[in-house]
Amino acid sequence: MPNHEHIVKSYDSELDRLYGEITRMGEIATAQLDAAIDVMIRRDTKAAERVVANDDAIDALEHEVSHDVLRLLALRQPMARDLREVYAALRISADIERIGDYAANVAKRSMVLNQSTPVAAAHGLPALAKTANLLVRDALLAFRTRDDKLAIEVWNRDAEVDAQYTGLFRELLTYMMEDPRNITSCAHLLFMAKNIERIGDHATNIAENTYFLVHGEQPLGSREKRDTTAE
Amino acid sequence: MPNHEHIVKSYDSELDRLYGEITRMGEIATAQLDAAIDVMIRRDTKAAERVVANDDAIDALEHEVSHDVLRLLALRQPMARDLREVYAALRISADIERIGDYAANVAKRSMVLNQSTPVAAAHGLPALAKTANLLVRDALLAFRTRDDKLAIEVWNRDAEVDAQYTGLFRELLTYMMEDPRNITSCAHLLFMAKNIERIGDHATNIAENTYFLVHGEQPLGSREKRDTTAE
Repeated sequence: MPNHEHIVKSYDSELDRLYGEITRMGEIATAQLDAAIDVMIRRDTKAAERVVANDDAIDALEHEVSHDVLRLLALRQPMARDLREVYAALRISADIERIGDYAANVAKRSMVLNQSTPVAAAHGLPALAKTANLLVRDALLAFRTRDDKLAIEVWNRDAEVDAQYTGLFRELLTYMMEDPRNITSCAHLLFMAKNIERIGDHATNIAENTYFLVHGEQPLGSREKRDTTAE
Repeated sequence: MPNHEHIVKSYDSELDRLYGEITRMGEIATAQLDAAIDVMIRRDTKAAERVVANDDAIDALEHEVSHDVLRLLALRQPMARDLREVYAALRISADIERIGDYAANVAKRSMVLNQSTPVAAAHGLPALAKTANLLVRDALLAFRTRDDKLAIEVWNRDAEVDAQYTGLFRELLTYMMEDPRNITSCAHLLFMAKNIERIGDHATNIAENTYFLVHGEQPLGSREKRDTTAE
């Protein structure tokens, strides 16, 4: 049935296009977090503005993904695993979009930091961002390769991000207590740290959706939240 | 064609079920934010624990909505406006789920506040929550009644939430500077205020998705972010 084959081929190429968009989104989002930390360290406000502006590229890609998903659903009417593929793509693109937002917010707040004298308290942020970004990259790899084992590993490793965040939260409070002149900068650093901790949560969401895609069910119930600063 | 009518009727009843779930989610989420502020004011840790636990009901409903959406897509294969209805339901349920998370986080952080002496700085939170929750209720009303004008109004009114948040952010910093003993409590209050500001953002998301549902396109491009504390 050459006709049917043609339809199948075209469906596959539409799915490929969708995955291509998601891969590109993921590459931009992780590069954005690296760039946000870089411009913060270099106290480069001009470069920070570029990071903030770059977020539009991720938002535009998410719109493309949503659009493609709606078209695929309407024209191809996928079922079972095919439907889960499309559904997971939609959810994962929303998570990457949020990761991009958080990265842009880190860059935006770095511009506020540049208006005051440098605070030593900023030193803990790069390490936290590194851990979180590695988690995002592994989550995206798990999705791309449909690797349910890696997805579970990512899901568990988010605890590292949370532990690092909790340490940084406490440290930032001590800087604030030591010198009231640090308070405004440290308040922004608190939010920057929280943004990065949330990026870790979105990595686990990507891992959960990857697991769901492969198995058709959620892994082990929702992981308990590990932001112990609110406990 | 009684058979066709039967299918249509059954489809409508499935959609009704979906909307019923979303309405229930919205009612619980807005009640949760009211309750979170109430337990914070009363410094009632036991009641705060109940608010945190109640969030499970919202999460369970979101799972039901996702499940129902997948089934509707697979079995009914809706097109055009019908497809947008289902798509909007999925997006809006995700927004309500996030609103529930933020409300639960406000309750969770209120328990940390209860471990220290009361700080006057907490007084600005109820007013912010009231503005945000009214916005959510109107966004849900706009969705329920497919009221695109109200959706646009909600979308514009989020600026009020943002302005109130910015004032509170600055006020909290002055409390921290006045007395270092306020710092830990005020750091949690900063996050609580930010949670509520984010609830306003999700109200605008619901409004955007409602507009998209009615018109098949996004309103006027994305509204610029108005958290001016990061500028």
